[in-house]
Amino acid sequence: MSVKQRVLLLGATGETGRSILNGLLESGNFEVEVLVRPASVQKPAVQKLQEQGIKIWSIDLDQSSELVTALTGIDTLISAIGPNDLLQQKKLLQSAKLAGVKRIVPCAFITVAPPQGAMRLRDEKEEVYNAIKFLGIPYTVIDVGFWYQISYPYLPSGKVDYAQIFPVKTIHGDGEAPNILTDLRDIGHFVARIIRDDRTLNKYIYTSGDVLSENEIFRIAKELSGEELEPIVESNERIKASVDQAKAALAQDPQDFMKLRGVYVADYNHSKYVRRDNTPEYADYLGYLNARELYPDFTPLSFRDFFVELLAGRGSKVYS
Amino acid sequence: MSVKQRVLLLGATGETGRSILNGLLESGNFEVEVLVRPASVQKPAVQKLQEQGIKIWSIDLDQSSELVTALTGIDTLISAIGPNDLLQQKKLLQSAKLAGVKRIVPCAFITVAPPQGAMRLRDEKEEVYNAIKFLGIPYTVIDVGFWYQISYPYLPSGKVDYAQIFPVKTIHGDGEAPNILTDLRDIGHFVARIIRDDRTLNKYIYTSGDVLSENEIFRIAKELSGEELEPIVESNERIKASVDQAKAALAQDPQDFMKLRGVYVADYNHSKYVRRDNTPEYADYLGYLNARELYPDFTPLSFRDFFVELLAGRGSKVYS
Repeated sequence: MSVKQRVLLLGATGETGRSILNGLLESGNFEVEVLVRPASVQKPAVQKLQEQGIKIWSIDLDQSSELVTALTGIDTLISAIGPNDLLQQKKLLQSAKLAGVKRIVPCAFITVAPPQGAMRLRDEKEEVYNAIKFLGIPYTVIDVGFWYQISYPYLPSGKVDYAQIFPVKTIHGDGEAPNILTDLRDIGHFVARIIRDDRTLNKYIYTSGDVLSENEIFRIAKELSGEELEPIVESNERIKASVDQAKAALAQDPQDFMKLRGVYVADYNHSKYVRRDNTPEYADYLGYLNARELYPDFTPLSFRDFFVELLAGRGSKVYS
Repeated sequence: MSVKQRVLLLGATGETGRSILNGLLESGNFEVEVLVRPASVQKPAVQKLQEQGIKIWSIDLDQSSELVTALTGIDTLISAIGPNDLLQQKKLLQSAKLAGVKRIVPCAFITVAPPQGAMRLRDEKEEVYNAIKFLGIPYTVIDVGFWYQISYPYLPSGKVDYAQIFPVKTIHGDGEAPNILTDLRDIGHFVARIIRDDRTLNKYIYTSGDVLSENEIFRIAKELSGEELEPIVESNERIKASVDQAKAALAQDPQDFMKLRGVYVADYNHSKYVRRDNTPEYADYLGYLNARELYPDFTPLSFRDFFVELLAGRGSKVYS
């Protein structure tokens, strides 16, 4: 009898999904299959998965009987769907329940934040979590804080330009807000542990490689690069104003996805730096487990080691 | 130095509030004060509290500076506000946070149910819980299941008419759905333990005296009374139809509180008997602690003993 757990992954070609897929394959404990929408099946990234020998299910999320077929025998359904499709996950839930899936990992994988009112992105995720609880399906919500890959400063020498999607020059408020951070590549390593662990059933859990303030991040970057950094300071008032501006812009054009992204970014800054939500203390308060406490055997990459790699030219650009 | 915990109770003259007040006073561990709205201060029930020597704060919930004064030095704020005023609790939260209240017990005290979509009453409570989490105030959500006092059948002899607000003749579905039940008078006994216990901070907890199906309740009633009971059976389909009817009636007249009550009652039946939410298993799934496990020293009244009392004429009518 095979003891490998069968996992179906949705969103396998996104940044988080790729990390999860790699983490699961590396661990050797899983038989991983991937769910894609018919419109995506010809994409090169999906073709590549197929070439790797990964089973691809191409199913429209409105085809519930086909979904039940794909989900039957699946132990864990993981969703790393993109932010614009979050509510689409609700279409999967009845099928997952009918198929007897043993655990759903809905698309969380963000910073720690309150369930309602602080971040629009989090509010939408809550709707999905509530739909899961309504059906009583076993679940695990996994949040990861912010990625190292989008948390390091621009260097005047241009040394890290090759890996940066936009130059980070700002420190928010007093720069002292601690933030839970995880290397994007470690998400999968954590997920591979979390979904084999009964302690995480029907629980929220956060991963972290480091918990650092912006001041600490800038100090590490300065020390390791030897460069002078002159951060721009953005006041709390300015951060709050940006949220209002982003919301106003979206209100004028509710279907514009870039404006929605604008709200997400502004919300993140407000939640991380003004409210200071993305901290171990607030995660404790909200009832999260701490993945570092559960898996002391696993040492994720530290921010310092990540930055050393980056300076050595071994980083890579996300969303590219 | 006094080691008595200072508690401020809102809704002290309602059924749940009275039980809590009695439980706290009996335990001797609390200095209990009561918050009433100015419109209620002349009510006989409030006057009676004053005669008992209980400190009464008469404050409009819109007067935040007065609320901060009342809440300063309060360890635990408990709300047992009525179902039509649930969202009023949000007015208290900023003041409670400013005053440094160490724990809020918002008005829960109902059956175990999912956070969204199964019961309108529960959905409104969720809005308050989320507002508490948004502010990061320490809290405990205490649910109690359904009360014995409204869970026992009508007897043909008329023996229990004196204590029954309406004759219970119905068994829902197959009558086998287990339900968490607590004697109304034991709510306060549980609360007095829960709010002195750090293990319940930022947690959900349910109390119970018994977990019984309607069939079991009817059997106990028959055995103890010696009377033949001929329950009317209401099908699951009929229960679902009642929810739709109640919602339609409310939609026609959204300000009619009796129609809102109609929705609450229909939702309860659907949640308790069709969905089977109000069970220890579902409570576990939702992350509730079990008060019976935390306080093995305390034995709440069993349903059987409650019914013996009732037959002996020592029951009393709720909401009277």
